[in-house]
Amino acid sequence: MITSVSNQKIKQIVKLQKSGKARRDTNLFVVEGIRMVREIPKDRLEKVYVTEEWKDDLPDDWEEGLHYEYVTQTVFQEISDTRTPQGILAVVRQQSYCREDLLGLRTAETTPCLLLLEHIQDPGNLGTIMRTAEGAGITGIMMSKDTVDIYNSKTVRATMGAIFRMPFCYEEDLQDAVAWLKQQKIVCYAAQLNGSCFYDCDYRNGCCFMIGNEGNGLTETIARMADVRIRIPMKGKVESLNAATAAAVLSYEVMRQRYI
Amino acid sequence: MITSVSNQKIKQIVKLQKSGKARRDTNLFVVEGIRMVREIPKDRLEKVYVTEEWKDDLPDDWEEGLHYEYVTQTVFQEISDTRTPQGILAVVRQQSYCREDLLGLRTAETTPCLLLLEHIQDPGNLGTIMRTAEGAGITGIMMSKDTVDIYNSKTVRATMGAIFRMPFCYEEDLQDAVAWLKQQKIVCYAAQLNGSCFYDCDYRNGCCFMIGNEGNGLTETIARMADVRIRIPMKGKVESLNAATAAAVLSYEVMRQRYI
Repeated sequence: MITSVSNQKIKQIVKLQKSGKARRDTNLFVVEGIRMVREIPKDRLEKVYVTEEWKDDLPDDWEEGLHYEYVTQTVFQEISDTRTPQGILAVVRQQSYCREDLLGLRTAETTPCLLLLEHIQDPGNLGTIMRTAEGAGITGIMMSKDTVDIYNSKTVRATMGAIFRMPFCYEEDLQDAVAWLKQQKIVCYAAQLNGSCFYDCDYRNGCCFMIGNEGNGLTETIARMADVRIRIPMKGKVESLNAATAAAVLSYEVMRQRYI
Repeated sequence: MITSVSNQKIKQIVKLQKSGKARRDTNLFVVEGIRMVREIPKDRLEKVYVTEEWKDDLPDDWEEGLHYEYVTQTVFQEISDTRTPQGILAVVRQQSYCREDLLGLRTAETTPCLLLLEHIQDPGNLGTIMRTAEGAGITGIMMSKDTVDIYNSKTVRATMGAIFRMPFCYEEDLQDAVAWLKQQKIVCYAAQLNGSCFYDCDYRNGCCFMIGNEGNGLTETIARMADVRIRIPMKGKVESLNAATAAAVLSYEVMRQRYI
């Protein structure tokens, strides 16, 4: 039972919660809540921390053999990022993917459909994009290196577990990544405020949707590399859609064309 | 120039930011930032508060005749709900709508398409739903009385101005509201995890999508009143979609069927 917030393990978890650098340096991140902890692949689980109160509340189907460490409620409050902590939290190893992993080749039946995200800043948006992407059958997510950290606790929570299943990578040089996609015969669509109505395109072959920053959209450098510029039609006086909304609407059109 | 945080007007704004009851009692709410302030219909604007620093930064096309009141930066920090305040904030009168307003009858060409939201709890979700709804051509939003307050500052911000244009109402008795919709020959679709694939339905006539709470979905009491239960197909191991994502995917299918 850890009773002190000065405990080294506790200090490390606090660092992992707060600092992207600490996460990168250790290759670890933190997952909170029973629903998310259940989704962790066993081979990536480092350690689980629970309060004694939590133990009393263990679900019947909870698997045996997990390495628990007990902490007091005060200590848990310190390591938790949520306002009403559930009393269970895990430290998990990060997973790295290569570009090929994003093409869905591991699941033989899938035609690649990627999202390429440039400079998405809102952690909740990124997590929601990942959750929706898995639902819509997206095969991988490519991100500019200035996109918010996917291991941010808000992002992790918003993925609802998709972070453990959806291949993703951060690209040092996004232009190089787009060039590579085109070599793979992936058709790149830049989501913008002007362009062809996105419903008019055929996404049944390998494709990638390029989606830009919440406030400014795609940089022209990247948009210029697209094969097609597309827009989501809008009624009323709406000037743009939320980035996660745009990703959802585009991804689900692929679902409709390919699988319905 | 208001220099004290004890000023009565300042205290009222703080109350309006924090308390739904204060907003209901006064019929007012607060809007922050230049982009949102520009969207306010003139006849609903009560007062604008700016810092002196902001004044120096007035855009060229800023309209004359607004009733400014200057406040110090310290005072502005007190009334602002954002971490990096822009230095402009407005107090605005609420608008009330009746059920008929939600049918889009004021714009003669529109066939009704409503969203009915039951117990949505996340302010950002509600605001994003409203923004996307306007973009997709939704005619109105009906909400259960336990849905989060639409005049919450986070919600207002996430609407990106749609709050001034999209008719909405809170319903004391949601069952009564659904019964009324059906009298208006609106076909009601309950978004659930089971049901017909939503792509298989025809939304070109008057329709309403019923969307439930983030964690629990629709109550069976409401879902049972639907004409059709629909589901959004999902790949992978995703158990459900974010409520705002579901609303976006459904709303844009209406856009596709009606307008493309």
